[in-house]
Amino acid sequence: MRPTPSFAPLPSSLPATVPFVGAEQMERTRGRPFAAWLGANELTLPPSPLVMEAMAKAARDEATFYPDPPAHFLRDALAAHHDLTPDQVLVGEGIDGLLGLTVRLFMAPGDVAVTSLGAYPTFNYHVAGFGGVLETVPYRDDREDVDALAARARETGARLVYLSNPDNPMGSWVSHADVQRLIDTVPDNCVVMLDEAYGEFHTDPQARTPRGFIRPNLLRLGTFSKAYGLAGMRVGYALGPADLIAGFDRIRNHFGVNRLAQAAGIAALADTAHLAGTLATIAAGRERLADIARASGVTPLPSATNFVTVDCGRDGDYARAVLREILARDIFIRMPGPAPLDRCIRISVGTDAELDMVAAALPEALAAAL
Amino acid sequence: MRPTPSFAPLPSSLPATVPFVGAEQMERTRGRPFAAWLGANELTLPPSPLVMEAMAKAARDEATFYPDPPAHFLRDALAAHHDLTPDQVLVGEGIDGLLGLTVRLFMAPGDVAVTSLGAYPTFNYHVAGFGGVLETVPYRDDREDVDALAARARETGARLVYLSNPDNPMGSWVSHADVQRLIDTVPDNCVVMLDEAYGEFHTDPQARTPRGFIRPNLLRLGTFSKAYGLAGMRVGYALGPADLIAGFDRIRNHFGVNRLAQAAGIAALADTAHLAGTLATIAAGRERLADIARASGVTPLPSATNFVTVDCGRDGDYARAVLREILARDIFIRMPGPAPLDRCIRISVGTDAELDMVAAALPEALAAAL
Repeated sequence: MRPTPSFAPLPSSLPATVPFVGAEQMERTRGRPFAAWLGANELTLPPSPLVMEAMAKAARDEATFYPDPPAHFLRDALAAHHDLTPDQVLVGEGIDGLLGLTVRLFMAPGDVAVTSLGAYPTFNYHVAGFGGVLETVPYRDDREDVDALAARARETGARLVYLSNPDNPMGSWVSHADVQRLIDTVPDNCVVMLDEAYGEFHTDPQARTPRGFIRPNLLRLGTFSKAYGLAGMRVGYALGPADLIAGFDRIRNHFGVNRLAQAAGIAALADTAHLAGTLATIAAGRERLADIARASGVTPLPSATNFVTVDCGRDGDYARAVLREILARDIFIRMPGPAPLDRCIRISVGTDAELDMVAAALPEALAAAL
Repeated sequence: MRPTPSFAPLPSSLPATVPFVGAEQMERTRGRPFAAWLGANELTLPPSPLVMEAMAKAARDEATFYPDPPAHFLRDALAAHHDLTPDQVLVGEGIDGLLGLTVRLFMAPGDVAVTSLGAYPTFNYHVAGFGGVLETVPYRDDREDVDALAARARETGARLVYLSNPDNPMGSWVSHADVQRLIDTVPDNCVVMLDEAYGEFHTDPQARTPRGFIRPNLLRLGTFSKAYGLAGMRVGYALGPADLIAGFDRIRNHFGVNRLAQAAGIAALADTAHLAGTLATIAAGRERLADIARASGVTPLPSATNFVTVDCGRDGDYARAVLREILARDIFIRMPGPAPLDRCIRISVGTDAELDMVAAALPEALAAAL
């Protein structure tokens, strides 16, 4: 037999473990399904009927044809939705895919990216994957600390700074003025990546990014996976100045965005009434989830998202035990990794029936973990 | 205003032009739709009804949930289909995406990849995109020349060699013995990438890769975009030794394969009767397309694919003129780029109605181009 060829040095240096274990893999490992999936901040409500119709039509008429590489019609719809021009919009395979492309486009091996300790791990995965150096700053009062991010970027000559607003995993937010200050105080050759995956759920008008907001050093990232309920379809987008957006065409998988996903995105944007209903349902569910936490003797953090992060009131070991107890009660949730965020668990806003399960399981889990 | 941040040196060095113009973009540019899309070797027949049912069910029940990262059930189905174990199978976002990941996994900047001059350009795009050096060898008698590929790989210490069997854009094939010889004669640290996108269409039993065929230095690539008629869904796969397949987990977009695409793939593999019907229809259409070419006074090349490459009998300028004339008659086709392949045009096997259009347009185009 011939020898096994080696990987290139950079991939060889990366961990061989699978970084992201999904809910179904957890079910297979434990040998039992979950009764509720509240761990990935998916929308457990149905998508718009118009979206379902658009997907059915595209399945019937178009599944056999390669997707349109520029996603022309979805890009136009997104441009109109965000008060931008089409050349300021790039449609991609979810924010995860766009994070990887952004790292690849701006960072050479050894370059620095700055993020918050405990923020979205997929960004960190891509930075490592392209040989970048990750610098982290702590959250401050459970919010991403824009001044610390900017300062660290200046100290390290960072190429990228990552900020999610609203934030995952804490559900918190910063004001648009804070975002502006970050943009204005990073070093000259640094791109601010503003992850707005949860942007539709903003509760504070001062935190919302104004329509049409573009800066030379800003890339905004949006998705149909959260408020539009299409996580399974893998479609997201980047908004930014046309010269940065055009750069992605040098490296992206041009035929990569599924045809049904493009059709679904167009229909989702058009059904504004459905989105309004979703946001109202989620707001009510978020309140109920906060009430469930308080009734169980623990503290829900304020949330501008479709999840509630609950401070279990003790240390990380306790919260990890609570998490295990909730999983054992067949509810899939997750929690932040590093201290001090790891005193919390994170629960997606589910349906009424799913929140009934949380209401039953949470007090039991908190007691069992003591 | 702040200055525009620069791209990293590698992407900065890449061409800014969009490499792949799709049919719809061509339609938008020319201001008129095509009457037949026969330029991307899509299947213009409907997918299996079982596939349509599976996609409808997944749209209804699962579109809101992130995809299963290992694509567990589709991977199992592919393993059974190919007589392999699941750890020898990786599901990915079409062959295009897998080509990029393979280049990234094995090639450092400056490393060499070998392909045939005029073979699939997306492989070349990814080699350039990761800073690799592309070496090409000519086709021999309109076939990829495995001995020349192996020799060039040895001369250059290549990390990757690309071979498609059956071949695109010529429709030709090599024997499995030739493939084996390539595998056996490349240098020790070189991976053979065997692109089997058109593998279901093989006409010569000696050319088919045997079920269960695995070698330490071989990655096979398959897709649902061709014989299964699901190009719009973006789902393909790699087959290889478990230690190479596991390497992709270090760098891939783990949640990247659309849920409906996974469901579609499982149903497509299960409907063997539908595939058999498709293959019979394509075989008949291929014969008819060859007859149309002969009746027009030009030479169809033998094809083991769902397209027929037609030798227009003169030089590249003539074939390019023929191509333009066919496009002007509202039929989208493509042609190989480099000489001597560029004496040919390439026409996908369409429906009877689409082939009627070709029968009318081809003689006119050949005459008009003179």
